[in-house]
Amino acid sequence: MSKAEKGVAAVVGVGDGLGAALALRFATDYKVALIARSAGVIEKTASEIRKAGGTALPIRSDATIAKEIAEAHAQIKRELGPIDILIYNGGRRPMGRLMDTTPEVFEETWRLHTFGTFLWAREVVPEMLSRKSGAILITGATAGIRPWPTSAAFAPAKFAVRGLAQVLSRDLHPQGVHVAYVNVDGGIDMPLLRNMRPDAKDEDLIKPSAIADAFWYLAHQDPSAWRHELDVRPFKEKF
Amino acid sequence: MSKAEKGVAAVVGVGDGLGAALALRFATDYKVALIARSAGVIEKTASEIRKAGGTALPIRSDATIAKEIAEAHAQIKRELGPIDILIYNGGRRPMGRLMDTTPEVFEETWRLHTFGTFLWAREVVPEMLSRKSGAILITGATAGIRPWPTSAAFAPAKFAVRGLAQVLSRDLHPQGVHVAYVNVDGGIDMPLLRNMRPDAKDEDLIKPSAIADAFWYLAHQDPSAWRHELDVRPFKEKF
Amino acid sequence: MSKAEKGVAAVVGVGDGLGAALALRFATDYKVALIARSAGVIEKTASEIRKAGGTALPIRSDATIAKEIAEAHAQIKRELGPIDILIYNGGRRPMGRLMDTTPEVFEETWRLHTFGTFLWAREVVPEMLSRKSGAILITGATAGIRPWPTSAAFAPAKFAVRGLAQVLSRDLHPQGVHVAYVNVDGGIDMPLLRNMRPDAKDEDLIKPSAIADAFWYLAHQDPSAWRHELDVRPFKEKF
Amino acid sequence: MSKAEKGVAAVVGVGDGLGAALALRFATDYKVALIARSAGVIEKTASEIRKAGGTALPIRSDATIAKEIAEAHAQIKRELGPIDILIYNGGRRPMGRLMDTTPEVFEETWRLHTFGTFLWAREVVPEMLSRKSGAILITGATAGIRPWPTSAAFAPAKFAVRGLAQVLSRDLHPQGVHVAYVNVDGGIDMPLLRNMRPDAKDEDLIKPSAIADAFWYLAHQDPSAWRHELDVRPFKEKF
Repeated sequence: MSKAEKGVAAVVGVGDGLGAALALRFATDYKVALIARSAGVIEKTASEIRKAGGTALPIRSDATIAKEIAEAHAQIKRELGPIDILIYNGGRRPMGRLMDTTPEVFEETWRLHTFGTFLWAREVVPEMLSRKSGAILITGATAGIRPWPTSAAFAPAKFAVRGLAQVLSRDLHPQGVHVAYVNVDGGIDMPLLRNMRPDAKDEDLIKPSAIADAFWYLAHQDPSAWRHELDVRPFKEKF
Repeated sequence: MSKAEKGVAAVVGVGDGLGAALALRFATDYKVALIARSAGVIEKTASEIRKAGGTALPIRSDATIAKEIAEAHAQIKRELGPIDILIYNGGRRPMGRLMDTTPEVFEETWRLHTFGTFLWAREVVPEMLSRKSGAILITGATAGIRPWPTSAAFAPAKFAVRGLAQVLSRDLHPQGVHVAYVNVDGGIDMPLLRNMRPDAKDEDLIKPSAIADAFWYLAHQDPSAWRHELDVRPFKEKF
Repeated sequence: MSKAEKGVAAVVGVGDGLGAALALRFATDYKVALIARSAGVIEKTASEIRKAGGTALPIRSDATIAKEIAEAHAQIKRELGPIDILIYNGGRRPMGRLMDTTPEVFEETWRLHTFGTFLWAREVVPEMLSRKSGAILITGATAGIRPWPTSAAFAPAKFAVRGLAQVLSRDLHPQGVHVAYVNVDGGIDMPLLRNMRPDAKDEDLIKPSAIADAFWYLAHQDPSAWRHELDVRPFKEKF
Repeated sequence: MSKAEKGVAAVVGVGDGLGAALALRFATDYKVALIARSAGVIEKTASEIRKAGGTALPIRSDATIAKEIAEAHAQIKRELGPIDILIYNGGRRPMGRLMDTTPEVFEETWRLHTFGTFLWAREVVPEMLSRKSGAILITGATAGIRPWPTSAAFAPAKFAVRGLAQVLSRDLHPQGVHVAYVNVDGGIDMPLLRNMRPDAKDEDLIKPSAIADAFWYLAHQDPSAWRHELDVRPFKEKF
């Protein structure tokens, strides 16, 4: 595929772990926009992509503010073209039981995961519908399906994202736009988690590149065989 | 049970339909607090309860504002005693696809369903834990499990409530506090819906009293056989 | 309710544990047929029911042989009347991983759980349909939803029963016949299990009478709010 | 990959539709054994594979008879080598409600779907475990998750297969053997179905090659991100 013919993938929420892996994976065949609130990782990952011959556009933008999203979207269209694949990977994971979770944390977690997904979907869907194609892929978590007691803020936010993904897939699939929620059912092998669990073995964690493969597979499924939810989990982990 | 020995049930979100039926059902054996933002229905239902010899306390209170919740709770404790059963039945059901749903409606729906449940749970759980008993029962909807495309705001909010209910049940069950989400999987036979669907037959709709029976059953399950989710649906409806 | 007006409940699979508890629970309001392959427990439980003033008919019959089922059914109709509630509680629980499970055990387990449910359903459904009423309630297990690796024979059999229950509920509910699968998600407090787990505390096990309450609730749900699956689990058990 | 290095895939149940597509898909990189009870399609598909430069071994064998399975397995090992990927695609789909389903059809359907999967798994698992690798992939159907009333025999059989797949994945994943159930949630575009539904549009049906892609993806997932169930469905179909 020549550069001019390449499609555009936008990854919202690029940090040290999965977001960067997703951007690198899609950069082999897509021009990639990397979006985050802070500059560090998106600049670094964009450099990697460019060194490998790809096209990367790092953008600082807050996924909870409609105006910033609209500006980021306008910049992507101007500099790369219309978005073919939107990956929403935003949000942190607070830990805490009900009584340890303040209303502020509860709301902020919803804002970063659920509201951000909603706002970005509203931003890109009209153009995808006009072209009857495109994909919206969302990073999920075990907490969105089978939560721990310590996910008093995180589980409701991820459940809501899953609910939104189901609404969108039921609404948009028949119109040619693919929506899927990828449930990452295990710890991701990234610096943050390695610091928190220094005794974790390789086989206990999911490789970011393996998760990126799941996103890639979903993004390229034949429309006659689409899927709107996919879980992945380390083979060694009991379930 | 003598009046003095009766426990206390609080129903948050008492309107014309299910809320009133829940209050009336529990009033046979509990002193009941009826909570809503407007006075009409709670006053009317409280009168019915009193005429039948029960105890009813109508309270105007906004379930999305922590301060108003704390005041309502204090009044209930003062006038009726500590809450044994909290029923969260709050919230409206907006209809609309993604592009018909404004960010304001999306947020407001979350606030009425999800945030309100969270705030009321935070308010009553400490005392329930101190007594190692109590129940929190939440009204759910099909949209929290298998949503329509027109539930772009409602489904994420109800999914979030279900996620919160699962967190709470996993956290609180072993400590003696029962939490359950009742999925009302069908139209409720109430004036609002009859107006919207004038051709609906009796057998197409769920009787509020039948839903109230499900709440009653859950509230009185033996702890050796608790359930945290229960769906009910009209027998005539295909699924 | 006078004796003459009482309905008929038939419990297939009456042993020392849940089956006896189900028979005793329904005997307060129904004439009860108790069915098992061996005489001991059905005779003993029938005596208990009679001493308490109830009506009990113990029948030895193999639930995997259509002819014996037809004979048992004919005897029940003759001596008690048509069956209003059929409870299928048959079958043993073999333990074993794939390579520890012989084809004979695999088949026998299917026969006792799945085939027996199918045969008994075929036997009682025509009459229930002709009266547009009746209930078929089936004892399920965790293995039918979230199996252990050691359930190589038991899980497929219980999954199959759950599938059959879903087929029947989707087929028969609109015709007025209620079908439900009760997932007993935990160890039942009965002599056999107490022997196997001598250190089990009361709070780790489900009381048979509490499971019987779940069956009772389902058998008497208002048709406007039916449910086809219900799980119950000890409050202390983490999930 | 040179021919000598190629792995071995065995497809059990090769008819006109999905089985042939699976064999052709895997033949690009694997030596393929094609197994069915009758000769027609396996010979024809084997010819196609050979013409394209691949290796194909057609074997007539009944998947419900342990002895025939053992013989087929021995022949595959002798002529191609040990099986790396076993695909179980056996079985027909009878239609019928409870009262239209004879005990013979109920048992035969279980035998073709469930018992056959069990027997083939028992045959190949010991060697896969000894090499700590391999995959068992099973064709599922909507009836195994959300059955129609007319699936009185088919749904219990497919539920049972799904239960068995879950047992095997929970047992074997930590030992390095991958097991997955692929839920084909829609009509497959093949001659039989086209005859039954002459008015079906292309977009209503799933392309066999698209389902084969799902099997391929699962067979090659990185072990750090395995999945044991995957549904695929035509994008145009409402759900």
